[in-house]
Amino acid sequence: MRAFLIMQPLVSFLSDFGLADTYVAQVKARIIDGCPEARIIDLTHLVAPGDLVNAGWQLHAACRHFPAGTVHLAVVDPGVGTERKALIVEKGGHLFVGPDNGLFSFIYPADTVINVRWRPGAPLSNTFHGRDLFAPLVVRLLQGAAPQQLGAPLENPVRFDTSRPLAVHVDRFGNIITNMDHEMVTAGIRVGRTLVSRHVETFAQLDEGETGWLMGSAGTVEIVANRDSAARLLGVRPGDELFLA
Amino acid sequence: MRAFLIMQPLVSFLSDFGLADTYVAQVKARIIDGCPEARIIDLTHLVAPGDLVNAGWQLHAACRHFPAGTVHLAVVDPGVGTERKALIVEKGGHLFVGPDNGLFSFIYPADTVINVRWRPGAPLSNTFHGRDLFAPLVVRLLQGAAPQQLGAPLENPVRFDTSRPLAVHVDRFGNIITNMDHEMVTAGIRVGRTLVSRHVETFAQLDEGETGWLMGSAGTVEIVANRDSAARLLGVRPGDELFLA
Amino acid sequence: MRAFLIMQPLVSFLSDFGLADTYVAQVKARIIDGCPEARIIDLTHLVAPGDLVNAGWQLHAACRHFPAGTVHLAVVDPGVGTERKALIVEKGGHLFVGPDNGLFSFIYPADTVINVRWRPGAPLSNTFHGRDLFAPLVVRLLQGAAPQQLGAPLENPVRFDTSRPLAVHVDRFGNIITNMDHEMVTAGIRVGRTLVSRHVETFAQLDEGETGWLMGSAGTVEIVANRDSAARLLGVRPGDELFLA
Repeated sequence: MRAFLIMQPLVSFLSDFGLADTYVAQVKARIIDGCPEARIIDLTHLVAPGDLVNAGWQLHAACRHFPAGTVHLAVVDPGVGTERKALIVEKGGHLFVGPDNGLFSFIYPADTVINVRWRPGAPLSNTFHGRDLFAPLVVRLLQGAAPQQLGAPLENPVRFDTSRPLAVHVDRFGNIITNMDHEMVTAGIRVGRTLVSRHVETFAQLDEGETGWLMGSAGTVEIVANRDSAARLLGVRPGDELFLA
Repeated sequence: MRAFLIMQPLVSFLSDFGLADTYVAQVKARIIDGCPEARIIDLTHLVAPGDLVNAGWQLHAACRHFPAGTVHLAVVDPGVGTERKALIVEKGGHLFVGPDNGLFSFIYPADTVINVRWRPGAPLSNTFHGRDLFAPLVVRLLQGAAPQQLGAPLENPVRFDTSRPLAVHVDRFGNIITNMDHEMVTAGIRVGRTLVSRHVETFAQLDEGETGWLMGSAGTVEIVANRDSAARLLGVRPGDELFLA
Repeated sequence: MRAFLIMQPLVSFLSDFGLADTYVAQVKARIIDGCPEARIIDLTHLVAPGDLVNAGWQLHAACRHFPAGTVHLAVVDPGVGTERKALIVEKGGHLFVGPDNGLFSFIYPADTVINVRWRPGAPLSNTFHGRDLFAPLVVRLLQGAAPQQLGAPLENPVRFDTSRPLAVHVDRFGNIITNMDHEMVTAGIRVGRTLVSRHVETFAQLDEGETGWLMGSAGTVEIVANRDSAARLLGVRPGDELFLA
């Protein structure tokens, strides 16, 4: 058997499409139809419908583990069919494709933001631009088109405030992922009426029912418990505001 | 780095196996073991157990976005282990593999339907033909066997009525996908006691709490709301009958 | 178009990471970054958090359908960040990578168990060794490192008793998968106060509401119903003890 080195362009894909419909598959089929050698890795498709802050955070947290050159397709698009713009965002050798609705707020400031004027030849549905516009756009990029060929620079993409301390995500284990740098925390974090002040290195240092904070795997502060859900113990939901003590 | 063009045969895979078991993986392992270059795209595996109408619809809606030559494996098989036939269905250059229980009703009329007589050499379990019969059958097709070599034409496959207006699917956003052509609707659609009469182009045209109908991304009529679930607002579940007003 | 035979090393991946976070994708990105030609098949990521018995069973049931040479990555790791060892387990030409916490109990006795001393150059998070330790370890193996180069043999890995009759898994259809060999059952299986004594070949042989046992697709005894959930009918949950009648 001989081995060949293949150029297999890498695409990551995040959406709020869920896994019970075939929307994710339809997008993939369009990409593969246009670029059969593309390799597509799912980030997640279980973002709560329309939750742009959480989607933006998850994209930001995951994308940096992919090699430069990856095209990241992100489709959370409650305004589909309206006049919202389509974007290509370049940053550090990564390309991001998706709607201009704040989804890339955690990626900004970017190297370039392109307002895409290019439209595919086939007719566009009003309700599924993930398949009909963004997937063909990914194909164009994989085929070697430069972002600048597909539109014009955009000065002010939609962007929401990412500096305010937030519970940007709650993971399956109930860990509360925040957007706070380690250095910001001194006396602790106020969560509702509770002060989370204990700083630990690992889950195992915490007692039963106790919460603490640590430097999480995304490089930001996480509020955690030991084999228990910090989110449940503290009554926190994604998007909740947090306060420095 | 040099790039080679690879012939990577494409397989789509739909089932009601869910994602918490390893059944999907076992089927994939068997396909890859027999045909290492096969590429497998999941349609969905979260069809409600045994729901042949919904499974058939989802297969129909998704398959047309794949290139010709794709082998579509569909396994919703409550009668596994009984005398129900195994089929290869050909239509427009696509091949479909699965049980003869009505699952391909939305695909019919087909170009050919083959009642598969071929059986793999390895012993067949009584409860998991997806892995033990259909996956090896997919491998045979990927290896170049013609459907006609694997069985004999079948005149009357199991087929249920697909012309009666139905809520064939409810998606994650609560959109009610129907099997109705746009041209069928004049005064609107009666859903239980409600008449859905407003025809829109996009979700955004609807007011809060209002439902309307539009031409959906599957090419049929969908009943929708604006950033809300039409299915919840109207109390509709997959499989419910609908009526033209 | 010309076809080339590609050497695409195969990786299977099981975890309790769920599908709503991007942890699975982060692990895959690390593997692909180190070994772009790796092919990764998900076993399941919906193991209940920290459920080592169920995870171990599911790994055992699925791995044998993969070709020899597959690297099976399994990460259910509630003790992450503590002193628990990292393992490479060899058995019958398959390699298993994961924590030393009993996860490989159903694989043992193995041909070799290696206590991995190798650590990646990049800093290790305290909470995500799946990405930061085990994924790079998989890459080392895919690049051709021998397990013996990465650590020293371990005599007594953590191992729990797998001989006691258990409901090792309940699948989506409510089938109760056990770890019992067919030959062990004579008069039937006692489940709580119920005696399941009817032996069948297929689901269809059972009447409505009746439960029976059959030789399941994993090669062990399963307790099943006909188009109904045996687990619900009998009130069984994964991990429940069973008794031979």
